[in-house]
Amino acid sequence: MADPRFFSVAGPFTLAALSRLAGAEIASGVDETRMIQDVAPLDRAGPEHISFLDNPKYLEAFASSGAGACVVHASHAHRAPSGMALLLSREPYRAYALIAQAFYPEAVPEARYVDGRAAVDPSATIGERSRVDAGAVIGPRVEIGQRCRIGANAVIGAGVILGDECVVGANAVLSHCILGRRVIVYPGACIGQDGFGFAMGREGHVRVPQLGRVIIHDDVEIGSNTTIDRGAGPDTVIGSGCRIDNLVQIGHNVELGRGCVLVAQLGISGSTKLGDFVSVGGQAGFTGHLTIGAGARIAAQAGVMRNVAPGEIVAGSPAFPAKQYWRQTAILEQMAKNKT
Amino acid sequence: MADPRFFSVAGPFTLAALSRLAGAEIASGVDETRMIQDVAPLDRAGPEHISFLDNPKYLEAFASSGAGACVVHASHAHRAPSGMALLLSREPYRAYALIAQAFYPEAVPEARYVDGRAAVDPSATIGERSRVDAGAVIGPRVEIGQRCRIGANAVIGAGVILGDECVVGANAVLSHCILGRRVIVYPGACIGQDGFGFAMGREGHVRVPQLGRVIIHDDVEIGSNTTIDRGAGPDTVIGSGCRIDNLVQIGHNVELGRGCVLVAQLGISGSTKLGDFVSVGGQAGFTGHLTIGAGARIAAQAGVMRNVAPGEIVAGSPAFPAKQYWRQTAILEQMAKNKT
Amino acid sequence: MADPRFFSVAGPFTLAALSRLAGAEIASGVDETRMIQDVAPLDRAGPEHISFLDNPKYLEAFASSGAGACVVHASHAHRAPSGMALLLSREPYRAYALIAQAFYPEAVPEARYVDGRAAVDPSATIGERSRVDAGAVIGPRVEIGQRCRIGANAVIGAGVILGDECVVGANAVLSHCILGRRVIVYPGACIGQDGFGFAMGREGHVRVPQLGRVIIHDDVEIGSNTTIDRGAGPDTVIGSGCRIDNLVQIGHNVELGRGCVLVAQLGISGSTKLGDFVSVGGQAGFTGHLTIGAGARIAAQAGVMRNVAPGEIVAGSPAFPAKQYWRQTAILEQMAKNKT
Repeated sequence: MADPRFFSVAGPFTLAALSRLAGAEIASGVDETRMIQDVAPLDRAGPEHISFLDNPKYLEAFASSGAGACVVHASHAHRAPSGMALLLSREPYRAYALIAQAFYPEAVPEARYVDGRAAVDPSATIGERSRVDAGAVIGPRVEIGQRCRIGANAVIGAGVILGDECVVGANAVLSHCILGRRVIVYPGACIGQDGFGFAMGREGHVRVPQLGRVIIHDDVEIGSNTTIDRGAGPDTVIGSGCRIDNLVQIGHNVELGRGCVLVAQLGISGSTKLGDFVSVGGQAGFTGHLTIGAGARIAAQAGVMRNVAPGEIVAGSPAFPAKQYWRQTAILEQMAKNKT
Repeated sequence: MADPRFFSVAGPFTLAALSRLAGAEIASGVDETRMIQDVAPLDRAGPEHISFLDNPKYLEAFASSGAGACVVHASHAHRAPSGMALLLSREPYRAYALIAQAFYPEAVPEARYVDGRAAVDPSATIGERSRVDAGAVIGPRVEIGQRCRIGANAVIGAGVILGDECVVGANAVLSHCILGRRVIVYPGACIGQDGFGFAMGREGHVRVPQLGRVIIHDDVEIGSNTTIDRGAGPDTVIGSGCRIDNLVQIGHNVELGRGCVLVAQLGISGSTKLGDFVSVGGQAGFTGHLTIGAGARIAAQAGVMRNVAPGEIVAGSPAFPAKQYWRQTAILEQMAKNKT
Repeated sequence: MADPRFFSVAGPFTLAALSRLAGAEIASGVDETRMIQDVAPLDRAGPEHISFLDNPKYLEAFASSGAGACVVHASHAHRAPSGMALLLSREPYRAYALIAQAFYPEAVPEARYVDGRAAVDPSATIGERSRVDAGAVIGPRVEIGQRCRIGANAVIGAGVILGDECVVGANAVLSHCILGRRVIVYPGACIGQDGFGFAMGREGHVRVPQLGRVIIHDDVEIGSNTTIDRGAGPDTVIGSGCRIDNLVQIGHNVELGRGCVLVAQLGISGSTKLGDFVSVGGQAGFTGHLTIGAGARIAAQAGVMRNVAPGEIVAGSPAFPAKQYWRQTAILEQMAKNKT
């Protein structure tokens, strides 16, 4: 279903194989040997495709879909059109993700390849089966692990370390940082530059040398044109499994726990610390030196100026506990209506 | 008037010629054969220049301007200093735009030029009179139309298609996208990278392959360091004539109608759809899966969480109909004053 | 203390030398000849290190620090652990900045160096002891002063002028601009592209040629992936000593006075003017054509839609005088609590 200009599909796979790799259960009566050629969205899928239903907004599209097979929660199975083979999962989106990965596996170079138009310092090391594209600039003493891909015109500064299977997008810039394994840096992201550090004064602001690094643990993704400043003295730390969207700003000395999800255009000021699995909506902002507890959820556009307890949900600018914020919004809405 | 280090002026033109190309009317008594050398702002223009008045904030500057000629709405003509030749237009800014384009036409290369330090895959095609600057990297099977300009160190990934007269700025990154004619991508913009797609889970977030494209129709402009993610399965679509400012984030599967105007730093979450001629102020945000009707206007910093009807004007975070929002703001302001 | 992979430490220095260059007073009883090897954060410093206390949040860390010496305000001196040598300063962070600069001086090339893989137009001039890294593209008639550093894959367009000791980060893009001395442009920043200028219309938006420049005075820093559009006719102007953080958007014709501090992700619409030493919090926004008085302070996430008087403090969206804004916030909070 994906445009072959841009994507190459693997497969086909039997429903039995797909159910196994997705950890999904085949609904009763389904022919396990049926071959599936590709994934496709509900509204464009045909009998040779597998699709998924996750967001109930798309129940109608599910009910009228021509998909040959579909991953779905058991509670929605009764809405399936007749003839659709169902794979049942309590996490249909996750199951679909694993199936789609099977149809569209990541390309890994067969052998080390360094484009002749890349500029690689002789003291840099590049692991087996890693690929460096045209125009990339790799500085002194850089260490790149195995099966990495360095995009065109990316710049990796002196001393940077990349673990195995990292991907650095085109035109991304890395300096003063150490990346774990399977870190994906999207195009245009800037990591490791000086933080916003200076002593203000009427007679001129005085620059403070920024002497820390950026430490990025395994399985992190960093979005396009996102900026992560290195630490001022301590390090800036991104915990394993974090997902950071585009155009996010992360200040010096910030620490993220494991598995945090940061949506686009949010900003975290210096020295603020997020616990594990904190999720933050788009365009939210944090002042500096805060502690945000594990599992906290911060709404989009929130302005967080105080510590947030583990598991707490906050919203608004300034941010309040979400229930209180929505009550405030409702009161104000009602007052304005009464005045009409 | 423009610094000759950076700009080359064409002309001169007679007032008759300028009025014709701008669709403006020459005020009575004006010498149509008068020669104009250049455009200039009201406060710096001399007798050889043509200027314009659009925003009434600048009426004083108009009344005291030394400009030899000026494009102006008829209702402001009586404020003109004596001796200023007037071109009357109901859309003075638009008329000025056409005049300024005549004085400062876009440069088009005389012949195809590919800098020797660009890296162009042998399977890519580059149209007549197109120009590729130093350090640009053009991938396999890329198709570039005629009279295009590809800036220094821009990266265009495998399979991308550009229609005629497209401009790609320095250090921009394009992948998985198809551009129409006369599309301008500003420096540093990233188009076509993976969307923010993963299935969340405590045991780790699972990546969802993003299998769609970015389709950009004719006459679109995309600002510096803006990011447009490709679709997850469907495409991300930008309608013809859209103007997108700097640092804007557009998520996967977003669709924009024709002529939308998106001001800097706004963000649109996945699968939200904007109708034709929607205008959105800076730093506004949209949650995902919304439908915004044609001609709707969204205020700066608004937080849009519900569908917006065609022609509706909304403001605030969360966004309300603008009149109600301003009433809310006024009520709160009044209450705070009463407490003083 | 800094990772030697990324940083080279100078020194050691005696306390006497450090106190001199920092303009700090040595507390009584301290051995002025004591040698200090390096700077370090309070919680990681040992007897050979000097640290600093500025934010009182870190008083505990100060009281239990193993640092051999510390820059501190006299009012906190009594909390120092015994044996810690104190340098007293009324501006401890500023004093520390000067000390850290001594330990970690900026590298200046010994001689002019232009990497063979840079593309420098023959008509460009590059000053003595300046360095141009691999992949940088320097256009016609560019003038680069002495002791400048141009990062890898940076692009500097035709006619641009850089004063002495400027630094342009990797993948930054400069065009139509003139920089003073000691200007630092961080990686990925885009300066001088066209502003968001067009005449809107149903029959299509008409492009307005942007004929101004960006003028950047001495000692300015411009953060990563920040965008500064050139003027439409007048220039966009950044006053000396301004500090601009990452992902900031500055529209055409904006003027900043001296010493302004702009935190990440804020946006300033076209033709708005800020006086000297205005400070603006992260994610704040300004509509166009405003005048913001000298010394004004704008809170994070504020939405400024009216002029702001010199020295005024505003907050909120829309922005109100800060005291009133906080009163409004408190009233609303109280009302919501009463309803519980």
